[in-house]
Amino acid sequence: MQFSRLVRFLAKDGKTYYGDALLPSGATDLTGVAQAKVIQGTPWGQHHVTERILDVQRLLAPLAREDIRTVRCLGLNYEQHAIESNMPIPKYPVLFYKPVTSVAGPFDNIQVSAAAQEGEGLDYECELVAVIGKEGINISEAQALSHVAGYAVGNDVSHRDWQLKRGGGQWGLGKGFDAWAPIGPAIVGTSLISDPQNLRITTKLNGETVQDSNTGDMIFGVAKAISILSQGTTLLPGDLIFTGTPQGVGMGRKPQVWLKDGDVVEVNLEGVGSCINKVQFEGKSRARL
Amino acid sequence: MQFSRLVRFLAKDGKTYYGDALLPSGATDLTGVAQAKVIQGTPWGQHHVTERILDVQRLLAPLAREDIRTVRCLGLNYEQHAIESNMPIPKYPVLFYKPVTSVAGPFDNIQVSAAAQEGEGLDYECELVAVIGKEGINISEAQALSHVAGYAVGNDVSHRDWQLKRGGGQWGLGKGFDAWAPIGPAIVGTSLISDPQNLRITTKLNGETVQDSNTGDMIFGVAKAISILSQGTTLLPGDLIFTGTPQGVGMGRKPQVWLKDGDVVEVNLEGVGSCINKVQFEGKSRARL
Repeated sequence: MQFSRLVRFLAKDGKTYYGDALLPSGATDLTGVAQAKVIQGTPWGQHHVTERILDVQRLLAPLAREDIRTVRCLGLNYEQHAIESNMPIPKYPVLFYKPVTSVAGPFDNIQVSAAAQEGEGLDYECELVAVIGKEGINISEAQALSHVAGYAVGNDVSHRDWQLKRGGGQWGLGKGFDAWAPIGPAIVGTSLISDPQNLRITTKLNGETVQDSNTGDMIFGVAKAISILSQGTTLLPGDLIFTGTPQGVGMGRKPQVWLKDGDVVEVNLEGVGSCINKVQFEGKSRARL
Repeated sequence: MQFSRLVRFLAKDGKTYYGDALLPSGATDLTGVAQAKVIQGTPWGQHHVTERILDVQRLLAPLAREDIRTVRCLGLNYEQHAIESNMPIPKYPVLFYKPVTSVAGPFDNIQVSAAAQEGEGLDYECELVAVIGKEGINISEAQALSHVAGYAVGNDVSHRDWQLKRGGGQWGLGKGFDAWAPIGPAIVGTSLISDPQNLRITTKLNGETVQDSNTGDMIFGVAKAISILSQGTTLLPGDLIFTGTPQGVGMGRKPQVWLKDGDVVEVNLEGVGSCINKVQFEGKSRARL
């Protein structure tokens, strides 16, 4: 990979580009990115970063749908979150999946369809997302990070009733709605983030901090998770791994807090930036950020 | 879709083609397919069936990896299987996923990696696989089958210890190994299978029938499942839906039966044909069918 901070964006000419983001002057992360060098080609194929600089009109999900393969997610992967969920510390990763259609851009609305408005339990989960850039199987923990193209922050939006009460114990139904996996604002390369286990990760709900942890609290760190998940299983470029959320989700609060129409959720990862997404109940509010 | 029986195959020239299979003379299904008309283009893009007929050297998975999107699977979706599993009849579909790398051809080996040789519980599950051919969201049950390109038979190969004891209750770890979702031998179009809920479905283990049921025993039939799964969730061309397995899996037998190195499993769906896959423990047998 030649990029440092991979973004995908709509430019003022109405076209969509891959780009290598230029860090705003004085910024420490990419939330306010305004310009990028255009990348020719696609991230997993031949590509190179040109010297052509374009203004960013709107950041999109940093990977096009056709450049994303399997979206894996880990559950209960932060020690303090396992404790707040009254669950034992897992001995093996708790693995579930989201469909590719759940992936959305860093500023897209979290759409809540009529089905997802049933019951209660709409919740946020800030997560470090590791993006696989190099195919591998039976990857050792020592080699694992060499298979990572970079990191994004993501929100594993979840509906607790659909997740826990309606799926016979499997979490698929409550995690997979369209746009319930915003990621971004960029995929920050491993040259810039050499240690994924020492990053502050936070969520703000309508401006109030509700999750505030560090990726060092992960039970299965990125390298260990990749090693385990790749045993007998080929990981492909474009696979995403949501690595679990720390304590502070709405389900774990007393009293519990569920997302409502119009709420704004910001998930932030140190060195990467934020996804800021407005909750939009279909048939209700229509404005987007 | 212009095809009747979509296959993908290696021809004698060493190249891979999509084709519309020619049913062997006197045959009622596609297990012994020997020839196909070459399809130009790809199944979800522009394509047409040519008059060029080629001999089939080896059938591959009927979709190339890049033409497969999300692989969804339903658990406990046959009434008699729910009973043998001592589980209540689900009110909502039990939804889980397999990665795209699990998809394999109808005669490929079921690879059992070192990790998957740990513990016990290697099991077969014959399933009707519905292949989505037309994008849609919030699809009504009445419209659902118009989104289906066709049907294949598949084997949702599972490892009960990894599935049930190691994943914190989520089934991801025990279902997703490479080549644990053989499908084929063709995708038989809806013009040939108008009613997916009246097809005999069977498994033979080393020639002995161990599952023998009918898709009419499904709790959530194909149309109902597509309708529910598409609420708030876009289904894409190339999405596969494994629709669950009937009674008779190894876990449900008394005594329980687990697949061993060298076993041959044949799953068959009426009007479609068979996937015949040999179990190959890595580091042990090397021959393939």
